[in-house]
Amino acid sequence: MARNAHPEVTERRILEAARDLFTEKGYEHTTIQNIVDRLGDLSKGAIYHHFKSKEAILDRLNSADWDNSQSERDRIMARTDLNGLERLRALFVMALGDEEHRQLSEVTLPFLDDPKMLFANLRFWATDLPDHWLPIIEEGVRDGSISTRYPREAAELIALLTNYWLLPMFYPASRDELRHRTECLATMLDAIGVPVFDARLIDQTADFYARLGTASAESGEKYH
Amino acid sequence: MARNAHPEVTERRILEAARDLFTEKGYEHTTIQNIVDRLGDLSKGAIYHHFKSKEAILDRLNSADWDNSQSERDRIMARTDLNGLERLRALFVMALGDEEHRQLSEVTLPFLDDPKMLFANLRFWATDLPDHWLPIIEEGVRDGSISTRYPREAAELIALLTNYWLLPMFYPASRDELRHRTECLATMLDAIGVPVFDARLIDQTADFYARLGTASAESGEKYH
Repeated sequence: MARNAHPEVTERRILEAARDLFTEKGYEHTTIQNIVDRLGDLSKGAIYHHFKSKEAILDRLNSADWDNSQSERDRIMARTDLNGLERLRALFVMALGDEEHRQLSEVTLPFLDDPKMLFANLRFWATDLPDHWLPIIEEGVRDGSISTRYPREAAELIALLTNYWLLPMFYPASRDELRHRTECLATMLDAIGVPVFDARLIDQTADFYARLGTASAESGEKYH
Repeated sequence: MARNAHPEVTERRILEAARDLFTEKGYEHTTIQNIVDRLGDLSKGAIYHHFKSKEAILDRLNSADWDNSQSERDRIMARTDLNGLERLRALFVMALGDEEHRQLSEVTLPFLDDPKMLFANLRFWATDLPDHWLPIIEEGVRDGSISTRYPREAAELIALLTNYWLLPMFYPASRDELRHRTECLATMLDAIGVPVFDARLIDQTADFYARLGTASAESGEKYH
């Protein structure tokens, strides 16, 4: 017996209401009751039928964010007019320019303050994410756009440093300091033959993290 | 009323017995009762009088390790025949060559598998440790042995990458792969004007982490 003929419609409504509330009030201050009130026609029980906890809603939003950008990524991966280096840059430009992704990052970023969340993210940055970058770097090596002795190391460093070291939450910095830091990263990646950060991407990266930094100013307190 | 006329003697005996047991049986499998049995003349209560938990004993062993090497560090810091770059290298050579430090690292390293322990260490690598390296890099800039636009970034990256990225526990690697990874780090640090890793130090670093890797082979499972 189906409790709901269109569960995916209900889930989508819950996710959208939750995302709006997390952005407005912050995740910590949002309750399931707030979501009930916002939707108007669903009970608490109905929401728990779809998501076992507030955390489960957040997890789904995060993976939905990755799924959303998946089609964008597929489009970039399918382009035959790009060499490996250009493809790598295009993926960065896309991620940094995606306003919905940035807003969701602002919501989820403060949770990196939690040891378990940070641990899970570090694992992702050390394992899955380098596996995502490596084939593109290897494509660049084959087509001659990238000339490096360190493809695996570059993939690991790009994943770790752009996601962790550039975060003002862990390494506090002004916009100018973030630009300087990104320039430093660019210089190092150039030196190992993976010149993905050109002048435009350096500026875009600094802007992205500076805006995130403002949003997460109160976070990172356990760190400092 | 003093329960013990020489508490520091008792504490030293407890720490030595605990360190031996942690090395022999592993931290996880060592109990306070084992320490009681090893010492023979102290009750459980007497041990809890000095240390509130097994974790407190481990913490003290870690800080004792840092204190032990403090006098070595002071000696290197006091030398007037070294320029900034040479002083930086001497500190690395010392840390990598200290057999007691390596043995204790083997004991404490598996705990990085615990999110809270890793979090505390990441904080140390992001804040205190760069503050330790930065003045030496700045000394090198003043005396002309180091020429960099990125002193702060170099201090942060040395702290993060040598302590986290080089660990086979998080980024599994053979001895040869560790040498390649260290070479990559050296190339990047050279490019930002901080050529601390010369050929000898690259080999010594790869050897150090390869030996640690063997010891912590069963760790890092939550990561992979």
